[in-house]
Amino acid sequence: MKEQVRDITSRDVDFSSWYTDVVKKADLVDYSSVKGSMIIRPYGYAIWENIQNVLDAEFKKLGHQNVQMPMFIPESLLNVERDHVEGFAPEVAWVTHGGSEELEERLCVRPTSEVLFCDHFKKIIKSYRDLPLLYNQWCTIVRWEKTTRPFLRSREILWQEGHTMHATEKEAIEETKRMLKVYEDFQRNYLALPVIIGKKTEKEKFAGAKSTYAIEAMMYDGVALQNGTSHYFGQGFAKAFGIEFLNKENKLENPYQTSWGVSTRMLGAVIMTHSDDRGLILPPKIAPIKVNLIPIGNKEEVFSKMEEIQKLLTKENITNQLDKSDKTPGFKFAESEVKGYPIRLELGPRDLEAETITLVRRDTLEKINVSFENLMETIKNVLESIQKNLYNRALERRDSMLYVASTYDEFKTLAESKPGFIKINWCGNIDCENKIKEDTGLKSRCILEEEEADGNCIVCGNSGKHKIYFGRQY
Amino acid sequence: MKEQVRDITSRDVDFSSWYTDVVKKADLVDYSSVKGSMIIRPYGYAIWENIQNVLDAEFKKLGHQNVQMPMFIPESLLNVERDHVEGFAPEVAWVTHGGSEELEERLCVRPTSEVLFCDHFKKIIKSYRDLPLLYNQWCTIVRWEKTTRPFLRSREILWQEGHTMHATEKEAIEETKRMLKVYEDFQRNYLALPVIIGKKTEKEKFAGAKSTYAIEAMMYDGVALQNGTSHYFGQGFAKAFGIEFLNKENKLENPYQTSWGVSTRMLGAVIMTHSDDRGLILPPKIAPIKVNLIPIGNKEEVFSKMEEIQKLLTKENITNQLDKSDKTPGFKFAESEVKGYPIRLELGPRDLEAETITLVRRDTLEKINVSFENLMETIKNVLESIQKNLYNRALERRDSMLYVASTYDEFKTLAESKPGFIKINWCGNIDCENKIKEDTGLKSRCILEEEEADGNCIVCGNSGKHKIYFGRQY
Repeated sequence: MKEQVRDITSRDVDFSSWYTDVVKKADLVDYSSVKGSMIIRPYGYAIWENIQNVLDAEFKKLGHQNVQMPMFIPESLLNVERDHVEGFAPEVAWVTHGGSEELEERLCVRPTSEVLFCDHFKKIIKSYRDLPLLYNQWCTIVRWEKTTRPFLRSREILWQEGHTMHATEKEAIEETKRMLKVYEDFQRNYLALPVIIGKKTEKEKFAGAKSTYAIEAMMYDGVALQNGTSHYFGQGFAKAFGIEFLNKENKLENPYQTSWGVSTRMLGAVIMTHSDDRGLILPPKIAPIKVNLIPIGNKEEVFSKMEEIQKLLTKENITNQLDKSDKTPGFKFAESEVKGYPIRLELGPRDLEAETITLVRRDTLEKINVSFENLMETIKNVLESIQKNLYNRALERRDSMLYVASTYDEFKTLAESKPGFIKINWCGNIDCENKIKEDTGLKSRCILEEEEADGNCIVCGNSGKHKIYFGRQY
Repeated sequence: MKEQVRDITSRDVDFSSWYTDVVKKADLVDYSSVKGSMIIRPYGYAIWENIQNVLDAEFKKLGHQNVQMPMFIPESLLNVERDHVEGFAPEVAWVTHGGSEELEERLCVRPTSEVLFCDHFKKIIKSYRDLPLLYNQWCTIVRWEKTTRPFLRSREILWQEGHTMHATEKEAIEETKRMLKVYEDFQRNYLALPVIIGKKTEKEKFAGAKSTYAIEAMMYDGVALQNGTSHYFGQGFAKAFGIEFLNKENKLENPYQTSWGVSTRMLGAVIMTHSDDRGLILPPKIAPIKVNLIPIGNKEEVFSKMEEIQKLLTKENITNQLDKSDKTPGFKFAESEVKGYPIRLELGPRDLEAETITLVRRDTLEKINVSFENLMETIKNVLESIQKNLYNRALERRDSMLYVASTYDEFKTLAESKPGFIKINWCGNIDCENKIKEDTGLKSRCILEEEEADGNCIVCGNSGKHKIYFGRQY
């Protein structure tokens, strides 16, 4: 395991290799014989379960109900909404045979489930009394990506997709923004990610949506990761599918729709934001094991003291693990760092005599000598402190990579020399957005709805309409 | 909704129509545009979540860890174990195209994941220290069935599949039986199903397994539903995949394997065992809503008393729902019965004055007048009593449809005239098993490991080897 640590590429030398080293060596994922698909191993899946538990409870608290739709979409159903099929058809997997028989109509494996939900909504929505209809689904989706990376871009993705229908446009837009806020709060408070939220441009919005709101996180290397989206559809799908309800005035009307989703991509963001050259660093709130107990030596007294501490931790609902294997202490310390357990406790015979224990926090690697008496209190404080520190240092790093460009030359220089996001005034025209992409490789991240343009578009010089961020992306 | 109730076909007139009426009218499932796949609606999915929560906690308590494997299996990987591919290839869905490109190798959507787990195990198992490896996965699988019925037989199935590897045959067989026992206990204690457990015949065992143990439940109409299986594989897959570990004697050896699974089929068993002509009846332990509160009239005092009761229920962790809609009480009573809420409470102004409330239990439809004072206590007792009563009456009915045949003529007469299971002495020969199927349509259910043959095979007259049940099946 000491070798495992040495085997991690430095993130400042080769960020991409560093990332794959960390996900592999921390036992989060493994590659499979299925090209482009990954295996999520127990440790990685336990983090995903922690994420699911928090989000699922939050969705339910807001009135959403879980359902399960089929994983297949008949081609004719995918074709109902024109923009949608154009966006997704190029990247779906097609089932053409069942057993030895060719299917009459081929089926795609869902890349997202708007059309399946609409097909169902058409049957169950009749009156304003049936609205709002607030559904969510946890499932996997498939998008036939050419290049893949664990958690970030994969042919099969674990995610949740919320799909809701409302009686008024106002209510649907509120839902779109409410769920974006749920994601934002979760990512700040649990994943310790300082995220930027805003509206995607027409070019970058979801296929079939009227507007798409997104969460943009910045990774350690200054590259953006879109880490959650919330879409407002207006009545587009409802009209295409013939979904109607009798409103309070007893008139038939098409309902207003939203959808929103986050995926295991969030694990990628956590890794690429917080981890270091020694391996994974996890925010305590989503860490499957918060405290790792490592006894030094074989003394029975040391073991039983550790077991006593373990019981206290379990009683306080602090997840933990006692490593009684015959590996060396050095090996166990390294393993603890690779796996990103927020706290490790080291106890040897001399510590036992002195009634103190060594606590090592993973984020700073700081060692603290703690008396037995103060241990539980200290652990609780340190866990909170790690959670805060991870957020603060990610925020500080991100802020140091946020730039403003007031001329296009300045923009191009920054784009070439500085990783990060660049804020500009923009006219809202897709031609200028395309020009930036062609000239620099940077794509629009999101329009900042809280800020107003205070100058002309830096590309064409026409009147500025939006403040917007540009950046490279995963 | 009163009409909805009248619309349910009587189960004694047409059991099959009754079943589809109940699953539809209780809002458990809906049909989709995807032939052979179903939509699990919020109420149905909430029952599945309750089942998942109990089983998942049980699996974890026994040391199993959740993982996520890809949903696709390359054809070459499916082909590695000969018996397995022969069993499954005829019923898988094949993906042949990604986007517009034809794949070099076609992929099937997993019908079960033994080969995916083995492919991974080969990489991660090295030493006896890595064993036992106890993995589980919650996912959906696809089997291209010709005729489908909600929950019972569907092209896409929600299930869990456990996959474990062990250092010794003894340990693996113990695991196979241990997990069968977990399923049995769960089905008895939570689903109130009096199940029969035993070993499948060579003819009926899982493709690639050395032995398959199964849970056989008997539905209201005397037809069997196989409701969970646990397989012992020996070293078959391990050898085919080249999985080896260094044992304690430092010699390379193939590990011993198990797999086990239950699915949403259990919901079908619950419905077909407990429900009646008024709709669904759910065992309280898995009911999403245990108590349905129905105020009579519009009096504010009645509402606030109901809200007070609701708070008490919630405080006691008894899930509940207060129906303040403007539907008539008669409509609400009928809806409560269709949905199978274990208890409904009716409160009108006169009850309020008398400080009593009417409690109606769904299983017997018995009405009880309860004083406010005794309400919580009574509710708890009635919930327990319903759980027990459902089990006992299912047991009594099942026992009344268990037969013993000592001659083949007797067997044929019973098979023709009596729904249920017939126990016989059997020589163990597949020819006799096939003859029974040809002559009567009955298939072997399971060999009873706790009982010994006490006579000759009723078909061929040769020496009896097993006691075995035969019956029709879903």
